[in-house]
Amino acid sequence: MPALNNSKRNIAEYITGYVDGEGCFSISFSKRKKLLIGWETKPSFAVGQNYDRSEVINLLKQYFDCGNIRRDYSDKTLKYEVRGINDLIKKVIPHFKKYPLLSGKKKDFESFAKICEMISRRKHLEKVGLAKIVRLAYQMNQSGKRKYQQNEIQKELL
Amino acid sequence: MPALNNSKRNIAEYITGYVDGEGCFSISFSKRKKLLIGWETKPSFAVGQNYDRSEVINLLKQYFDCGNIRRDYSDKTLKYEVRGINDLIKKVIPHFKKYPLLSGKKKDFESFAKICEMISRRKHLEKVGLAKIVRLAYQMNQSGKRKYQQNEIQKELL
Repeated sequence: MPALNNSKRNIAEYITGYVDGEGCFSISFSKRKKLLIGWETKPSFAVGQNYDRSEVINLLKQYFDCGNIRRDYSDKTLKYEVRGINDLIKKVIPHFKKYPLLSGKKKDFESFAKICEMISRRKHLEKVGLAKIVRLAYQMNQSGKRKYQQNEIQKELL
Repeated sequence: MPALNNSKRNIAEYITGYVDGEGCFSISFSKRKKLLIGWETKPSFAVGQNYDRSEVINLLKQYFDCGNIRRDYSDKTLKYEVRGINDLIKKVIPHFKKYPLLSGKKKDFESFAKICEMISRRKHLEKVGLAKIVRLAYQMNQSGKRKYQQNEIQKELL
């Protein structure tokens, strides 16, 4: 296990570099009839890694001091993931504001941060807020798969 | 283009983090009848990236001040690659000795560095040296594909 307290290393910058390659900031939506607005908004910060190189996954959990590690049996990877809005707002997002990503993924992060801030102000439970969140979310991670077309969600928010 | 001279950032650590996720140190072998020993030994440090996130690829070339960027049409990626032994010895390897990788990829790097040092002392042109290089190389990147089985090369070096 690499030591976090290695004073000769700048682990924060290492983590930003690693995440710029392997990390993913995403917002997903699920139909939830029990919710007044009908949709659940789920933010996720996730980093995958093959089983045989779990060191960095453990380092991430230790560094961010939140989130979970789980096995993805489908593609034989370990995944470090943070879903809790308070952890995202207080621990994950401040890191990437202080040590910004350098790739195009930075734009996704900025949308992600904006959406998380709206969620923490409970804007995702109002039609106008959720419509804005959905618009932002569907501009992120262009290549990602979506269960719902954007207009399937938007038409319910008019 | 992210600035290399951003004094608030520790780009070196960022690069180690990025490479720990996305980089690959490898040694390949090709049959070359024209060479006395019959085999060419080719070291490569490579980092791939989707077209849509070329920023870091450009940053790597600028940072290491060597190597080439090329398109891989097969999988729509850009690849930054350093193959020259002098550049590897003088520019790439010293970086990762100063800012070591933290994942299991570190072991691959250490074998890679050892092999490059042997190549720079021209040990790959002698049977004993090449046999040792081949042994080390075939322990690296366990998951990688190989054109030749190790014993196909080793049997010619007895």
